Amino acid sequence: MKKICFAVYFLIRGATLFAEDGYRLWLRYDKIDNPSLLQHYRNIISGIQFPASSPTLIVAKKELVDGLEGLLGKKLNVAERQNIASVRVGTFSMPLINSIIKNDNLNLGNEGFFIVTKKINGKNNILIAADSDMGVLYGVFQFLRLLQTHQSIEKLSIISIPKIQNRILNHWDNLNRIVERGYAGASIWNWHLLPGYIDKRYIDYPRANASIGINGTVLTNVNANALVLTKLYLEKVAALANVFRPYHIKVYLTARFSAPIDIGGLKTADPLNVDVRNWWKQKVDEIYNYIPDFGGFLVKANSEGQPGPQSYGRTHADGADMLADALAPHNGIVIWRAFVYDIPATQNTNAETQTFAGLPYSLNDRFKQAYNEFKPLDGKFRKNVSIQVKNGPIDFQPREPFSPLFGAMPQTPLVMEFQITQEYLGQATNLVYEAPLFKECLDADTYIKGKGSIVAKVIDGSLENYSVTAMSGVANIGNERNWTAHPFGQANWYAFGRLAWDYNFSPAQVADEWLRQTFTNDLHFVEAAKKIMLMSRETLVNYMTPLGLHHIMGTGHHYGPAPWVSNAGRADWNPVYYHRADSVGIGFDRTEKGSNALSQYSVEVKTQWEDVNSCDEKYLLWFHHMPWNYKMRSGKTLWEELCYKYYAGVDSVRWMQTTWEGLKNYVDIERFEQVQMLLAIQEKEAVWWRNACLLYFQTFSKMPIPPNYEKPDHDLEYYKAL
Amino acid sequence: MKKICFAVYFLIRGATLFAEDGYRLWLRYDKIDNPSLLQHYRNIISGIQFPASSPTLIVAKKELVDGLEGLLGKKLNVAERQNIASVRVGTFSMPLINSIIKNDNLNLGNEGFFIVTKKINGKNNILIAADSDMGVLYGVFQFLRLLQTHQSIEKLSIISIPKIQNRILNHWDNLNRIVERGYAGASIWNWHLLPGYIDKRYIDYPRANASIGINGTVLTNVNANALVLTKLYLEKVAALANVFRPYHIKVYLTARFSAPIDIGGLKTADPLNVDVRNWWKQKVDEIYNYIPDFGGFLVKANSEGQPGPQSYGRTHADGADMLADALAPHNGIVIWRAFVYDIPATQNTNAETQTFAGLPYSLNDRFKQAYNEFKPLDGKFRKNVSIQVKNGPIDFQPREPFSPLFGAMPQTPLVMEFQITQEYLGQATNLVYEAPLFKECLDADTYIKGKGSIVAKVIDGSLENYSVTAMSGVANIGNERNWTAHPFGQANWYAFGRLAWDYNFSPAQVADEWLRQTFTNDLHFVEAAKKIMLMSRETLVNYMTPLGLHHIMGTGHHYGPAPWVSNAGRADWNPVYYHRADSVGIGFDRTEKGSNALSQYSVEVKTQWEDVNSCDEKYLLWFHHMPWNYKMRSGKTLWEELCYKYYAGVDSVRWMQTTWEGLKNYVDIERFEQVQMLLAIQEKEAVWWRNACLLYFQTFSKMPIPPNYEKPDHDLEYYKAL
Repeated sequence: MKKICFAVYFLIRGATLFAEDGYRLWLRYDKIDNPSLLQHYRNIISGIQFPASSPTLIVAKKELVDGLEGLLGKKLNVAERQNIASVRVGTFSMPLINSIIKNDNLNLGNEGFFIVTKKINGKNNILIAADSDMGVLYGVFQFLRLLQTHQSIEKLSIISIPKIQNRILNHWDNLNRIVERGYAGASIWNWHLLPGYIDKRYIDYPRANASIGINGTVLTNVNANALVLTKLYLEKVAALANVFRPYHIKVYLTARFSAPIDIGGLKTADPLNVDVRNWWKQKVDEIYNYIPDFGGFLVKANSEGQPGPQSYGRTHADGADMLADALAPHNGIVIWRAFVYDIPATQNTNAETQTFAGLPYSLNDRFKQAYNEFKPLDGKFRKNVSIQVKNGPIDFQPREPFSPLFGAMPQTPLVMEFQITQEYLGQATNLVYEAPLFKECLDADTYIKGKGSIVAKVIDGSLENYSVTAMSGVANIGNERNWTAHPFGQANWYAFGRLAWDYNFSPAQVADEWLRQTFTNDLHFVEAAKKIMLMSRETLVNYMTPLGLHHIMGTGHHYGPAPWVSNAGRADWNPVYYHRADSVGIGFDRTEKGSNALSQYSVEVKTQWEDVNSCDEKYLLWFHHMPWNYKMRSGKTLWEELCYKYYAGVDSVRWMQTTWEGLKNYVDIERFEQVQMLLAIQEKEAVWWRNACLLYFQTFSKMPIPPNYEKPDHDLEYYKAL
Repeated sequence: MKKICFAVYFLIRGATLFAEDGYRLWLRYDKIDNPSLLQHYRNIISGIQFPASSPTLIVAKKELVDGLEGLLGKKLNVAERQNIASVRVGTFSMPLINSIIKNDNLNLGNEGFFIVTKKINGKNNILIAADSDMGVLYGVFQFLRLLQTHQSIEKLSIISIPKIQNRILNHWDNLNRIVERGYAGASIWNWHLLPGYIDKRYIDYPRANASIGINGTVLTNVNANALVLTKLYLEKVAALANVFRPYHIKVYLTARFSAPIDIGGLKTADPLNVDVRNWWKQKVDEIYNYIPDFGGFLVKANSEGQPGPQSYGRTHADGADMLADALAPHNGIVIWRAFVYDIPATQNTNAETQTFAGLPYSLNDRFKQAYNEFKPLDGKFRKNVSIQVKNGPIDFQPREPFSPLFGAMPQTPLVMEFQITQEYLGQATNLVYEAPLFKECLDADTYIKGKGSIVAKVIDGSLENYSVTAMSGVANIGNERNWTAHPFGQANWYAFGRLAWDYNFSPAQVADEWLRQTFTNDLHFVEAAKKIMLMSRETLVNYMTPLGLHHIMGTGHHYGPAPWVSNAGRADWNPVYYHRADSVGIGFDRTEKGSNALSQYSVEVKTQWEDVNSCDEKYLLWFHHMPWNYKMRSGKTLWEELCYKYYAGVDSVRWMQTTWEGLKNYVDIERFEQVQMLLAIQEKEAVWWRNACLLYFQTFSKMPIPPNYEKPDHDLEYYKAL
């Protein structure tokens, strides 16, 4: 007995030698720490019957057995005898399922699943069933999630079907392992060691993705390198695709438009040139030889220096359709990005001295350009082309109104592009839960087909009857031990997957799930940490860009405040272009008197936002240049409200810090300290943003920071010098 | 009882959820798996008495308690009561030590330690004692190693004193986290998150280093960025130094010679300019304000584009002495690198067409340049300047003769620079244990003061009475989960530290220790894996550069064979410059008839190597251009011997593969498979090297590959195209 106790002691202790390094993400499967619940689960789950022969069913079964054995802390009976098993898993084509339930009228489709409690021989059994292998896989992960989050499994009846067909991560990973806008170390794709070396991450990556419903991944940066399309690299891509396939993750690549020149030896990449078209056709055939279920191409063309069809006097449609024709025989798709902007060369001159306050608004307001370029092309694209549109019209700001393209292209499937990596959201140091940002956009009403025409219904195809639907998220994944550097960065990866599966999930619900799986089910912890998460995005908006301010961060690296910058290489890279602060007021006039960008929205939206009285104040400076003493709904002047928001942002970070301090005893010391240190950095950065922005805007408003607020501890010159 | 069994089962199982990811390196402290040995250790170690108040003693005590509790699988009694403790730890100034033993005549110095078994009140006690806190720390790690490697601890009497004062890792890490010649992901220094965020690696890094005796680290690349000397970065450096300090790890930085211009606003960096000298003085004072125990500067100057004193018509001594004067008041040192080479501009022209076969040998043979530049400066350096010399005269080749500088500068302390990262040794894919390479150089006899004047005795100062001694190793560390990408890469980090502590350790002994700590003490495994390790470097030499060939790899990235390259930007970047194969023969004539580089060695060495009959054949083509049909000692012609060596290299890799396959049941599946996959890649690369080199050299020798050898499966053009 003493020996056993020693053994137990050691094993407990030994486990602590493995610190909680975050590598396991939300798939932790540690034993249920509530004894009565554990006993209850053990009673219900007496064994598993899961005949698995296909690769997808085999990995699903392994996940289920590993997961349950971890959660229940016991070896499971996985024999095929019916009198032991109480959990039956399989497709509706299998007798162990269809002898009990039918899939009539369930309409599960290719990916949906059904988890249901059924009495068999007087005993309750749980069936996890689907029409397809991948449906079973998703059902298994959902069942494990029920236990991981301490839900009841007594009387189950869960039908779940994804709203969007293609739920895709976009990796902005270069072949040299540098991740553009990546803040979590190097790319997890070690191209040098592929195809011979299969890193353990290449298995845990599709596991994590499948568990939240992601079914596609673009491996390479939209600022593309054609080398990935060469034989040498396709062998490496195929090795990854082979590992991902059982988990129902399709591989996509970015296609550099000049690839026929770069690696094909041609003199042109003109999409109407026969040799070019043939080259792509052969290249695509070659790709499908390596990767029979290849997803297709993601393309950034004629944007920020990337080559494209316009270099040959052709349209985006000409370019996309050429690739689509090559992909069509293999059922591949083209996802063409709408992130394009260009301004007349004349506006680029004298960048050193340009200021925008008081100048007439450009007709080429960057806000308008994606719409201007793509709207006329509606109907010109092949069936297997989608246009990928960033959630907002500019570039992943802390808050943007929805892009006016959503709803404006009824004949062209539009793909939502969210950015999971926190390029403008504090990068690796700020705790910002993005589900509220995603949701705000998805829930926004375009009024395109009357009230209720929310962006989500554009994207899911229900409004315009799209044949292809997709949602993309720019990944925040790197090779740091915990994948995302900030422990709470994992929540954004998780939330993207869950909302792409079903945008009806609430941010609170997703946060709740994630916290329970990732940290603990202790209610005190979950409730407090959830509050932190749910307030975090609004907090960031407040200390960075309240009231509709946008794009006033440092140029290039996009880190820290720099509203004073006016010398960037092109006009619309300059913060002063966007805030236009002057002695009169602040904000970008996008009404008819200004750039008239509002005219790109439906009448209902335009009417609401062009009138300062009906415009939501959170978008005020997105659309209006308002006087400093304008009276806000709060009764404060605009300047006072701006001060209030910036100070409220910092105060909220401090509240997050205090709240986190109180959670010390509920979470492992490693991650507790990580978040504690990061929140301390975030507090410093919030103060930096607040002080730098208010001191700078004060040079225009000439109004005081209200006396009851703590004084900035440095002057403007100090912040400019940082 | 059943409940306990469940608990035990779960804990065993739970542990497997934490895969062996390699993060713990050789500090695993898992429970001793030999029951009788475990009982024996438990009997001897009944408790610990270790009064710890200083930061170093506190971390040493934590390490000892954590380590022993893990190894023994039980909670230790760490009370201060003498009747329980059987292990006493402390300095000789403490009564619990000096009441039992004295340090008379031990000469432990500042870092040595003494571990001894003493009877106290009739019971055997173990004392771990030292004159200093760091000595105690090193003693603790040695004591843990005894248990980790299953050594007897019954009658201990171990005195260990380092032979070299400064045992330093050189990180070639850029501030943007790209590691030059790094193959293990991004830099572990996350400058963006410092100083606020202390990554767990910043604690485990000094732990690992202290455990093998490393006491210094140069954080930044020798191709330096002056930014690291600014206030912003010094705060970050100080945060690292604060974490490292208890572990007795000093921080060094690389000093970019042009820093006074880059960040100081000066117009010159002339080392004799008063403003420049003052700038450095103030900068150094500032650094010591942040880091009171700052180690000093490592400098690469006037080499490969780096700025240096020669840009101002000054000597290396002028530059080094300026920095030394600034550092001297703080006891800091300058380590100035001798890796310089430059050739007359005229030789750089027509690089496209240059071939060296048949051309007269340049007087500026790159082999000779470090010696030519530095030997005349002997005696010109300040007391706190050392010159850091790469082990060989060219650049970290699989095999080089020792640099002729060793022994040639009696008045200047010379620092050994080894490269742990495998720039030329197969990078991240090849299993190459470097201890035999390090040892071959350290044991080489310079004959400078007669027979026995081995390189190690130059470095440790015993031959010339140096006041400062040091050994540097260019780190192979990155942010991959297991630190070094290849699991056996950890062995090279380990071996560097152990040999820097005491070069008398044998490669076999070090491999044995490392294997036991890192994998298992199972003798079957240890013996087989040790064989693999010990043969691995000679194997690599055979399939890459046998018989004294060197520098025939791909230019720039230094990966893969490219003996045919003749168009690199400068003459001595071209493989053809080094092998000089022609219809007559192959090899670089460095005798009097050639470049006369041999004249840089002592007469004894020169005499031995200049005569082909006494020259060790492993160095033959380093020093001689030999005819293809030259009769080797084996009786084969040179061409046949070359073939034999290349084929033997590939055969050995295959043997390594087979041997590793046989170890599957002795090691965790994760690392087993990692090494298995990497060996498969290595086998392919070895075949690639063999075939490419032999097919290419065959175009000169016009001789057949012996018929009993497997035929190359591609022709030369195929390999050239790779």
